[in-house]
Amino acid sequence: MHMDVWFCGGLFLDIKRKLPWFPSDLYEGFHIQSISAVLFIYLGCITNAITFGGLLGDATDNYQGVMESFLGTALSGTVFCMFSGQPLIILSSTGPILIFEKLLFEFSKNNGIDYMELRLWIGIHSCIQCFLLVATDASYIIKYMTRFTEEGFSSLISFIFISDAIKKMMGSFKYYPINTEFKPDYVTAYKCECLAPDPMASMIFNGLVPVPTDNTSSLFGWNITGLDWSQLSKKECVKYGGSLVGNTCKYVPDLALMSFILFFGTYSMTVSLKKFKFSRYFPTKLRKLISDFSIFMAIMTFVGLDRLIGLKTPKLIVPTEFKPTRPDRGWIVLPFGKNPWWVYLASFVPALLVTILIFMDQQISAVIVNRKENKLRKGCGYHLDLFWVGVLMAVCSFLGLPWYVAATVISIAHIDSLKMESESSAPGEQPQFLGVREQRLTGILVFVLTGVSIFLAPILQFIPMPVLYGVFLYMGVASLSGIQFWERIKLYMMPSKYQPDFPFLRHVPLRRVHLFTLVQIICLAVLWVLKSTVLAILFPVMILGLLVVRKMLDMVFSQHDLAWIDDILPGKDKKKDKKKKGVKDDTKKKDKKKVRADDSKDEEKYHAYSNCSSRSESDVDRSITLHLKISCPSSPTVPMAHGRGMAFPVPQVKIEMESD
Amino acid sequence: MHMDVWFCGGLFLDIKRKLPWFPSDLYEGFHIQSISAVLFIYLGCITNAITFGGLLGDATDNYQGVMESFLGTALSGTVFCMFSGQPLIILSSTGPILIFEKLLFEFSKNNGIDYMELRLWIGIHSCIQCFLLVATDASYIIKYMTRFTEEGFSSLISFIFISDAIKKMMGSFKYYPINTEFKPDYVTAYKCECLAPDPMASMIFNGLVPVPTDNTSSLFGWNITGLDWSQLSKKECVKYGGSLVGNTCKYVPDLALMSFILFFGTYSMTVSLKKFKFSRYFPTKLRKLISDFSIFMAIMTFVGLDRLIGLKTPKLIVPTEFKPTRPDRGWIVLPFGKNPWWVYLASFVPALLVTILIFMDQQISAVIVNRKENKLRKGCGYHLDLFWVGVLMAVCSFLGLPWYVAATVISIAHIDSLKMESESSAPGEQPQFLGVREQRLTGILVFVLTGVSIFLAPILQFIPMPVLYGVFLYMGVASLSGIQFWERIKLYMMPSKYQPDFPFLRHVPLRRVHLFTLVQIICLAVLWVLKSTVLAILFPVMILGLLVVRKMLDMVFSQHDLAWIDDILPGKDKKKDKKKKGVKDDTKKKDKKKVRADDSKDEEKYHAYSNCSSRSESDVDRSITLHLKISCPSSPTVPMAHGRGMAFPVPQVKIEMESD
Repeated sequence: MHMDVWFCGGLFLDIKRKLPWFPSDLYEGFHIQSISAVLFIYLGCITNAITFGGLLGDATDNYQGVMESFLGTALSGTVFCMFSGQPLIILSSTGPILIFEKLLFEFSKNNGIDYMELRLWIGIHSCIQCFLLVATDASYIIKYMTRFTEEGFSSLISFIFISDAIKKMMGSFKYYPINTEFKPDYVTAYKCECLAPDPMASMIFNGLVPVPTDNTSSLFGWNITGLDWSQLSKKECVKYGGSLVGNTCKYVPDLALMSFILFFGTYSMTVSLKKFKFSRYFPTKLRKLISDFSIFMAIMTFVGLDRLIGLKTPKLIVPTEFKPTRPDRGWIVLPFGKNPWWVYLASFVPALLVTILIFMDQQISAVIVNRKENKLRKGCGYHLDLFWVGVLMAVCSFLGLPWYVAATVISIAHIDSLKMESESSAPGEQPQFLGVREQRLTGILVFVLTGVSIFLAPILQFIPMPVLYGVFLYMGVASLSGIQFWERIKLYMMPSKYQPDFPFLRHVPLRRVHLFTLVQIICLAVLWVLKSTVLAILFPVMILGLLVVRKMLDMVFSQHDLAWIDDILPGKDKKKDKKKKGVKDDTKKKDKKKVRADDSKDEEKYHAYSNCSSRSESDVDRSITLHLKISCPSSPTVPMAHGRGMAFPVPQVKIEMESD
Repeated sequence: MHMDVWFCGGLFLDIKRKLPWFPSDLYEGFHIQSISAVLFIYLGCITNAITFGGLLGDATDNYQGVMESFLGTALSGTVFCMFSGQPLIILSSTGPILIFEKLLFEFSKNNGIDYMELRLWIGIHSCIQCFLLVATDASYIIKYMTRFTEEGFSSLISFIFISDAIKKMMGSFKYYPINTEFKPDYVTAYKCECLAPDPMASMIFNGLVPVPTDNTSSLFGWNITGLDWSQLSKKECVKYGGSLVGNTCKYVPDLALMSFILFFGTYSMTVSLKKFKFSRYFPTKLRKLISDFSIFMAIMTFVGLDRLIGLKTPKLIVPTEFKPTRPDRGWIVLPFGKNPWWVYLASFVPALLVTILIFMDQQISAVIVNRKENKLRKGCGYHLDLFWVGVLMAVCSFLGLPWYVAATVISIAHIDSLKMESESSAPGEQPQFLGVREQRLTGILVFVLTGVSIFLAPILQFIPMPVLYGVFLYMGVASLSGIQFWERIKLYMMPSKYQPDFPFLRHVPLRRVHLFTLVQIICLAVLWVLKSTVLAILFPVMILGLLVVRKMLDMVFSQHDLAWIDDILPGKDKKKDKKKKGVKDDTKKKDKKKVRADDSKDEEKYHAYSNCSSRSESDVDRSITLHLKISCPSSPTVPMAHGRGMAFPVPQVKIEMESD
């Protein structure tokens, strides 16, 4: 794969590569595993849609609310999963876009510019810029992305996911404060009463606020003095200017603790059921099924528990009416008429930022999804993906819907839920990973379901939010596993004799491995801190900083070490192993140099991007032959006087290994 | 070991066997593991003392309360651990004794007999009967106890323990009912008020109870009419005849759910930390330490969490003043003066029941503790144990303290916490079990600590009861593991290819094993049902029923099968294996008969009782020599056309094993 010079070359190649797989992309989706994947990802998507919808509603004064979020997710997701280069990618709202919308809305409001129209033009510009990037094969840049950058990004996103899930959970303790001073015997001393405002105080109160007393009373159609204050609810009491007096007013019993039980219960039950695959009980097929449906079973269990106890925990509420969140906007945003003409041109500048945001977010997520470890057969389509993201940007802008881009963690969860494994795995043994069920059906179904969630409201209203936060926590934690960076962090705490047999540990000194991991940890810590500031909007751009750091590492680490820690991919690994095992010991020195030369020569061949070609053709080469030679040397005659432990000769077996 | 005919022969043999170990019983206690064992068992003991103390207080109108329970536990435990034959046994109050006391108190009250004096005489008679059993070497009966009976008893006790822990936890939901109807917004509608009794209703109320109004008022030193009713607590309100009106009166927020979190958290954290021993992290010594102190760390964590949140969860309250619970009794019960003379003689009959209860409970627990699996070196002392239990019965009766007998589950927990394991265990691999730290120090310390708990009250008051129930749950579950019956139940759910390599599975058809397990399950179910009726008092006697069922099994199963499933002990197992492996295939039939003959001949040699002799002398014989013969036959030449999987010859290794 080299930089294509002709116009749209990458895009045409992508289409040429993906088109033959299209029929199989549909029929390969018919498998029981797809059901669990659809349910899992669907719940993740609607939770995300509701969360981001709520936040967007706050940020844009309901110009984009939960309803728009649902509709946009359904529309963009369906189109993308149907036509994109990598249908395993799940689109979602992301943090940087949210911050951008917030800043944009504030800017428009302060400067008297129509937000929706400005946004439409930014979307159009951004779409055109995406097309330019596609046409010039700019996705070629991801060639420079090594494991260092890719894992840094995905770890950070996973950490953000985990921390968000925990933060949302902890929010329950803020929304439902616990009265820790409660003494059961003094239950008679606890109350909260709504008191009518003191006429004197009421006058002062009304003098301070713009609305005069009689207006308020007439506004709600009754006279305040005629109210039975003791019958009002908390909200009503505050609305009519009453005061809440009592020692229970700010407390809510049970809900916070119940939320915690649901959250933690869902998470730990999912983890336990996932592990059940490795237990000794039940036949393999049943265990596989339990493991596949672990999230579904955990959700059902805790929804049931919640129903059983019957507490008013916060539930998943989806919009039930098909209309824009804000009553004064329609479904179509018109491009002209509200803003001066120069705004149409000037929006080119913010569009540039959006394009960079989207490009980085989308392509890094795509690299992570297309990792060689995932053993994808059908190849990728970076240019095609970006093309569709651009198209959807424009469409969403016209419809006044949020913008969408690949969501790293949910996409990883999607792949995890579609993994195929060898069936005849012994208990306790890791089954062999065969590949991923690559198809478009699960994605399409997820987003169609998201679209019809409006009609599913009667079912969805039983699901407590803490249960979904538990699912989010699981997604975040699960996406961390299988990242080599994470495995290397664990090495810090392992005595060297217990360390797993990673190939890089055989070839790179442990101290160098630790140093490399340390650099990664420091980079992540810096990014984490930056992310907490206003710079968060530049977050995907900061990933470019990782590329720079990685380049500098070339000066600290030898190319040989970097090849093993940073760049090694399973296929390369095996071939190298074979090559190395084949040479005689006396030519070791020479060989080392040769391998190093190989590295630089092979570099282009093995970077992340190279995975684009379908893998199935080269499968034949991968088998390895091992000749085992086992011999039993005659036991040395040990004198019997050497103590009890040595009284009998220990059988000695010598195993030699050769490979060709 | 055969039935000794001379007087007190068993007792003298026990003393002769245990005396030489006495110094090592003290100095072998000095090990860091002992600290964790003492903390663990101490917490178990005081929780038990408080639970049974409370129940006994209810049952005997506070003649025996929590104070007596602490004092009795401390006294009996210390004496028993210092002088008994098996100092690993932990004494405690048990269910059957509690029921007996309850029936006895009711009988005394209804017939105008002095309860404490009657109880003293029963204790004296029972003590004499115990001495008789010791003198006649009656403990010989346990020879007939096979794995079937022993495991039936210990499983049942473990189930009761688990179910009690869960029941106690669920009690929280009863004591602190949750208001599931609570709506946060309507907080203003929730209150509970104490209303003064209506003068008219009050008169009727006072007419119904014997104490007239003015008496009540003067009793508490104030006039009811002068009370500020709204300032009264719930209890006071009820005391003065007020009525509680409101929708929160019967609810207590948060405490039930917090209790559940503490309970389940303590249990699962203990389980996780125990498993940490098998992880790859940290050096072996540190892992062992974490595993040993898992219960302590879990308790500390959840005590800390409880403090942090600050809810008024039920705490461990120990008595702080050294005086009998009931003010009108002293520390010494006098034998004469309150009951007619014939009561002193007639108490022989109930004493007989108590003796049987105690004998069965004590000796079966001792058999379980002395299991061959525990690899005890210092031998046992059934006669000596029973002697001291008898002495303590009399002493406790004179002091008006509860009676004590071996507690199965806590004793197993004691042994578990003192297990020694080989240090150089690889991660994930079960370390080799070397034996138990047999000594008297941990037991003595536990009971001395129990005695001085009165002074530890300021520390102990921070420990929430649900945390201790979590510890109880762990004790119950942990005592189930390692029981072969439990392993056999698990086999029901395992496809045969995944079943572990149990020796009995090699020699007995799976169907027979399942049948045997089924019989055990049915027996346990019947015992469980009986236990829930008034027959519970006869519970230890019912174990005799198990012996009968086991005898009947001789008609269903062949002696060969029973030898493998029911009677096999690790030492025997190995020897048999050796013997069986040694014979040639053509003599198999003959050999089978020989083995069967061996079984009947060896039966006496290998029953549970035989473990009494110190094992160290015969250790030399146990080493096994295996000659491994490994050869690699030349790979058969496979035609290359057989598909890709068969393209290369699979290396074949043949391993033959011989032993001498």
